[in-house]
Amino acid sequence: MPIIRIEMWKGRDEQTKGKLIAEVTKTVCEVAKCQPEKVIVVIEDIPKENWGEAGRQASQA
Amino acid sequence: MPIIRIEMWKGRDEQTKGKLIAEVTKTVCEVAKCQPEKVIVVIEDIPKENWGEAGRQASQA
Amino acid sequence: MPIIRIEMWKGRDEQTKGKLIAEVTKTVCEVAKCQPEKVIVVIEDIPKENWGEAGRQASQA
Amino acid sequence: MPIIRIEMWKGRDEQTKGKLIAEVTKTVCEVAKCQPEKVIVVIEDIPKENWGEAGRQASQA
Amino acid sequence: MPIIRIEMWKGRDEQTKGKLIAEVTKTVCEVAKCQPEKVIVVIEDIPKENWGEAGRQASQA
Amino acid sequence: MPIIRIEMWKGRDEQTKGKLIAEVTKTVCEVAKCQPEKVIVVIEDIPKENWGEAGRQASQA
Repeated sequence: MPIIRIEMWKGRDEQTKGKLIAEVTKTVCEVAKCQPEKVIVVIEDIPKENWGEAGRQASQA
Repeated sequence: MPIIRIEMWKGRDEQTKGKLIAEVTKTVCEVAKCQPEKVIVVIEDIPKENWGEAGRQASQA
Repeated sequence: MPIIRIEMWKGRDEQTKGKLIAEVTKTVCEVAKCQPEKVIVVIEDIPKENWGEAGRQASQA
Repeated sequence: MPIIRIEMWKGRDEQTKGKLIAEVTKTVCEVAKCQPEKVIVVIEDIPKENWGEAGRQASQA
Repeated sequence: MPIIRIEMWKGRDEQTKGKLIAEVTKTVCEVAKCQPEKVIVVIEDIPKENWGEAGRQASQA
Repeated sequence: MPIIRIEMWKGRDEQTKGKLIAEVTKTVCEVAKCQPEKVIVVIEDIPKENWGEAGRQASQA
């Protein structure tokens, strides 16, 4: 039943995203004792100009 | 006052999204007794490579 | 596959939430042509003091 | 039209949240040129045991 | 520690987004007494066809 | 830089949440090549009456 959302900068390729989905699902199921069939992972690619840390836009850092 | 967010795979056309907004707003207002004027719907189109179920990337399924 | 998140003020009872889940799932499936088995609905109860519209806190409105 | 969601540790009082709603709404409207009437702010209080930075749970830090 | 997410219609340029990140971070820190170093802002650009108010799609309004 | 949000049913204890934060951070950093210092994990505990799958409220399943 868990839903996992990962917000990260744009730029990972399809294969890395696939690995991220597989590995995060496995980790969550091991720790929280849930069935992989019930886990959903959604990745959100965020452009650097839409991301700020400490008041600074990541595209300008 | 409700905010409704719908995450789904990319690929619905503008007309389907418009219908989704209208119908979901109507349904929520009927059940939760709220005014349509106060309802916001936000649709997020998720690419299949960013979506995983049961540890498998939807673009590879 | 859709995930639907509904943010609304705290205070609906369990039965109303159950009806909301059932009816919204039905509406989304009819419009977006998806299987009910794939739909997840998550309701978030927001206290009025945590909700603001037009710069005014709902608990003070 | 903007929706602003603020996730922060539990523990702010109602007055601080009210001020946060008012001031953030004002700031966003000034910068993004939108009408305050259209802005919604939702605050989410997160318990420290549900928050992690650098792999460490905030309640244990 | 706050995470601030701003959902708004597509169309702001990079400079406006940068200013939004800087000013919202400043406002939140002043009101909630937190360090700017700990604040993350994420902007989500929503196409008008994905946004509905009062049951009406913003692209059709 | 990634922000990871995990929505799951209420009921995990503090220790399990701590382990979830630690392990998910580790997994994401290994796969996506990022520094643990930059990772934030937020867990959202969802009551079963607020969660629906296939149109059925989890508290009634």
